[in-house]
Amino acid sequence: MTTERSLATLQRSLGDPTVSYPLWPPMTSGCPRTSTDEISYPVEVDYAYDRVDPAMFATATERGGGLDRWAPLLPPLAAPGLSEGGTPLIEIETGVFIKDESRNPTWSHKDRMNRCTVSAAVAAGASGIVVASSGNHGASAAAYAARAGLRCVVIAGPELPPAVGSFLNAYEPVVLPVPWEARWPLMRRIVDRTGLHPVSSITTTHTGHAFGPEGYKTITYEIYQDLGVPAAVFVPTSYGELLFGIWKGFTELRRLGLTDRLPRMYACQPTAAAPLAEAMRRGVPAAHVTVGQTEAYSIVSPVSGYRGVVTIQDSGGQVLELSDAQLEAAHQELARVGLWTELSSAAGLAGLRTVVDVDGPVVCISTSSGFKNRSVGFRQTETIAPDWDDVRSRLHAAGICD
Amino acid sequence: MTTERSLATLQRSLGDPTVSYPLWPPMTSGCPRTSTDEISYPVEVDYAYDRVDPAMFATATERGGGLDRWAPLLPPLAAPGLSEGGTPLIEIETGVFIKDESRNPTWSHKDRMNRCTVSAAVAAGASGIVVASSGNHGASAAAYAARAGLRCVVIAGPELPPAVGSFLNAYEPVVLPVPWEARWPLMRRIVDRTGLHPVSSITTTHTGHAFGPEGYKTITYEIYQDLGVPAAVFVPTSYGELLFGIWKGFTELRRLGLTDRLPRMYACQPTAAAPLAEAMRRGVPAAHVTVGQTEAYSIVSPVSGYRGVVTIQDSGGQVLELSDAQLEAAHQELARVGLWTELSSAAGLAGLRTVVDVDGPVVCISTSSGFKNRSVGFRQTETIAPDWDDVRSRLHAAGICD
Repeated sequence: MTTERSLATLQRSLGDPTVSYPLWPPMTSGCPRTSTDEISYPVEVDYAYDRVDPAMFATATERGGGLDRWAPLLPPLAAPGLSEGGTPLIEIETGVFIKDESRNPTWSHKDRMNRCTVSAAVAAGASGIVVASSGNHGASAAAYAARAGLRCVVIAGPELPPAVGSFLNAYEPVVLPVPWEARWPLMRRIVDRTGLHPVSSITTTHTGHAFGPEGYKTITYEIYQDLGVPAAVFVPTSYGELLFGIWKGFTELRRLGLTDRLPRMYACQPTAAAPLAEAMRRGVPAAHVTVGQTEAYSIVSPVSGYRGVVTIQDSGGQVLELSDAQLEAAHQELARVGLWTELSSAAGLAGLRTVVDVDGPVVCISTSSGFKNRSVGFRQTETIAPDWDDVRSRLHAAGICD
Repeated sequence: MTTERSLATLQRSLGDPTVSYPLWPPMTSGCPRTSTDEISYPVEVDYAYDRVDPAMFATATERGGGLDRWAPLLPPLAAPGLSEGGTPLIEIETGVFIKDESRNPTWSHKDRMNRCTVSAAVAAGASGIVVASSGNHGASAAAYAARAGLRCVVIAGPELPPAVGSFLNAYEPVVLPVPWEARWPLMRRIVDRTGLHPVSSITTTHTGHAFGPEGYKTITYEIYQDLGVPAAVFVPTSYGELLFGIWKGFTELRRLGLTDRLPRMYACQPTAAAPLAEAMRRGVPAAHVTVGQTEAYSIVSPVSGYRGVVTIQDSGGQVLELSDAQLEAAHQELARVGLWTELSSAAGLAGLRTVVDVDGPVVCISTSSGFKNRSVGFRQTETIAPDWDDVRSRLHAAGICD
């Protein structure tokens, strides 16, 4: 625990950067001064950047240290860690790197966020946290709450994949699976009535926890150490928190004088649920859409947030809309080089495969493990007789023997 | 790929250390000169230890480098890696450290082994590999084969947990699920008829691949860098390859003058399948047992190997037999600090909880992720109505609100 080393100074509105708030208490409902009935603007954390020693990026990152290694550029890490982050960058073809976030404590990128948000809950003196989640976010939050000795309530969607249900329940939170339309009203009610600290969004358009995306910046710091600044980053995107966090990391590197280059940021969404694409088309800070059918449940959202628009605009990036067939092709491509991912996690590579004009190395973020796929556990394996003629014909079909 | 940097020199019999063989071809059926009809003796890899620069242990291990970082003390790494290893050591209470091997590319320790054995297959010019496995070993082998462009056949047991079936099939090997008693005869037949390189054992008592346990030594190198030499290491054990590999790593550190201490090694087996315990009781190099009921399927074996006996004897260690209730208690204890493991993986901590006289820090190896548990995916989540009175009573039951 390294609470004393954070250089965080205050919370600043994304709706109007001249509007700021003290660092405490952590803001969990966006910026009250700039938000309207239609659009909620998030806040972000600001730091005493002039006191950051850029040499912290020159020192090699040792394995296993967790986010603590980046404490000066994070909110205070008051909750104990699980050695989150420090994930590898794997080159699957020349210049194409996969950032494999399935190597985290609960096998997704969400651990970086929850280290920060659960720390906020601990520092704010909350007795517990509450989160609305379709899977990874909730299980990760429950794991960090368990580690910190906090209670945890997870409001789950109605269609939790069975394997993900096992995952979520393993950390023993109170799980409340409710119909989709009920989850945000219930979340707000629980926050009002219990004082639990919310670690997911409770506003009309997405804002989330002010400290959450800060954790995602560490992905950028690691990429910078391993590779420098790539030409582009392709990010599986629902609310845009991961997208924004990674982008913010690069802008910080520039601010610290470590680079004058910035990557283009590509937000990769399922065609069936692409509220950020809709917001960009309509030129609005955030949009609502009707969600269609897709198996990429982890990046399905009916609403976007302003962080996504900021990232796409400022980076000269683009929102890519991807069919399930495109996601599945990228998913299979990754498995064929030994990386089994969630279908949602393959959106980064699927996005890259639709873009032809990238000049330089690219990073595709792969957010999570294949074990979180909706299809996991449904295929029963049937035992076969060990008859050699039968086995030989199976091997022959696979090109293995004559 | 760092094939040029290995200091491996030859293969040496564990049955009689004066018996050695050239490094190539890799031996996949133990030592033919010392083995008998009843007992097969494994071989291990020897190195030009006098040419190892001990300073390689002084340099901090950067994240993401994979086993390549330890190339001098490994067989040639001819197959490409997936950034295996580099897993964190997490202190869950003062002096009790969990080595979380679920952070590997396929979320188990087996990746360290398969990087080495698939490298052997590549270097030997094989067109593919064949492996008999109940889950983790097979899926990991399939991932490394895919990464290397080799074919892969996995002979699975008859009771593959459904989620593990999804995992295994994801990497697209040829999967042959056969009755338990048929798997080793079929394995031998496939090796004989197809020339596929075997990466699991094909002998009467367990020997396995000569290069496999070498990969596990890197766990020791990492522990040494993070902690030094602990008083004891508690290892989930079936055939004893992991146990032996970790032990061998410590003996190498002593040989290189880096320590004069060695840990006690505790082999942690389910009571229902404890062939190493049986071998120690009977004072024989390896034993067969009748397997009983246990949910810890990844460490169920009807046969042990001589590596286990060597480790327990030389380290002054012990075999601990654990009931499923003891395993489940440790499993729950780990989840409650945010680490969801396979039931088998909790055997290390379960073993520690039965031992009272350990003087100094201890490491419990946690081999794999909770997603591999047999129970995964079987619990259906039922949606509840978002009725506040009902929700409040659920929260009240959990001690969250009045």
